[in-house]
Amino acid sequence: MQRPEPSDSSAARPRRDSAATKQRLLTAATAEFAERGIAGARVDRIASAARANKRLIYDYFGDKDGLFDAVMDAHIDRIVDAVPIDAGDLPAYAGRLFSYALDHPDLLRLVTWARLEGRLGPTARDRSTQSYHRRLAAIEAAQQSGHVTIRFTPAQLLTLIESVSVGWMATTSAFLAAGEDDESPHRAAHREVVIESVRRLLT
Amino acid sequence: MQRPEPSDSSAARPRRDSAATKQRLLTAATAEFAERGIAGARVDRIASAARANKRLIYDYFGDKDGLFDAVMDAHIDRIVDAVPIDAGDLPAYAGRLFSYALDHPDLLRLVTWARLEGRLGPTARDRSTQSYHRRLAAIEAAQQSGHVTIRFTPAQLLTLIESVSVGWMATTSAFLAAGEDDESPHRAAHREVVIESVRRLLT
Repeated sequence: MQRPEPSDSSAARPRRDSAATKQRLLTAATAEFAERGIAGARVDRIASAARANKRLIYDYFGDKDGLFDAVMDAHIDRIVDAVPIDAGDLPAYAGRLFSYALDHPDLLRLVTWARLEGRLGPTARDRSTQSYHRRLAAIEAAQQSGHVTIRFTPAQLLTLIESVSVGWMATTSAFLAAGEDDESPHRAAHREVVIESVRRLLT
Repeated sequence: MQRPEPSDSSAARPRRDSAATKQRLLTAATAEFAERGIAGARVDRIASAARANKRLIYDYFGDKDGLFDAVMDAHIDRIVDAVPIDAGDLPAYAGRLFSYALDHPDLLRLVTWARLEGRLGPTARDRSTQSYHRRLAAIEAAQQSGHVTIRFTPAQLLTLIESVSVGWMATTSAFLAAGEDDESPHRAAHREVVIESVRRLLT
């Protein structure tokens, strides 16, 4: 992991430079994987965008799959925990999930590729599972204190909230609307629909 | 499109055989694209699975992208119109969308790859757009006759219904649950949640 780059000449620089190079590779790989997925990504393009030798990808990450795992590990906290759950106001939580997903389309694309290509490393899986159970516990506590309907289980409520706030991006209609206008008024109206929908689901 | 295969020897057989070969290629390509997407698909594997010469893929479909377009065209009616909308009972419609998507995971995967890889040919796009507007009109008519809430626009309602019934499959929780049990009781419970959710959205 701390192997010096070929051009390094001092004793102190290699470690620092390799960390910087590794970070540049991760940044370039994030963009490439989000755009093209694992099968479509090219390590040549990633190395070139990171101004690094392609060989370093294999030194640091093993192979293209290992690089994808490293990208997912680097972003998993932003994917699963960037929007803290507020079980006391789930409609507002849904609105924030919606805004966050729209603000970070690359993260949603990474997750979707990972799902389709069946690749989620142990670190990302553990962090996702922990986050999932933390959110379930928050909803369960809100149910026990009488603040949230018990008509649905915590897992069902979480799925519904995610579906309404984020899952719509995967629907056929969203696919058709991909080329359409996504200016602020439309977006604000959609966010309001998300919030109102979750309010209705909880009634 | 009706070019004979190299091994054909009679005057009558080539056309029939090429139609059969073309269909075998489409069937094999559907499985390959659903599994691996466009970038991940290999024409070698498709030709081999279809017991056809790889060259025929280029003869019939131009290239791998053209073959993907042909696959989407062949399935687009099943994707967008297999479940006819019933604006008089939208919760039941949502339940049927849910069951259909679970029964046809390959179709959902094809649509998701197409969306991520930004590839939807003119035929599939036209059919999707027509279906979309037909469904919007059905909801609008139900609103005008007082059978459906006007709290949401027809487009918003359609998005919500699709999100709750199908979009959940793209959420992080669904990704985590991918390896979990999906036996009948769990599925029936989820379908009931979908139906009840849409009922609540319409109240």
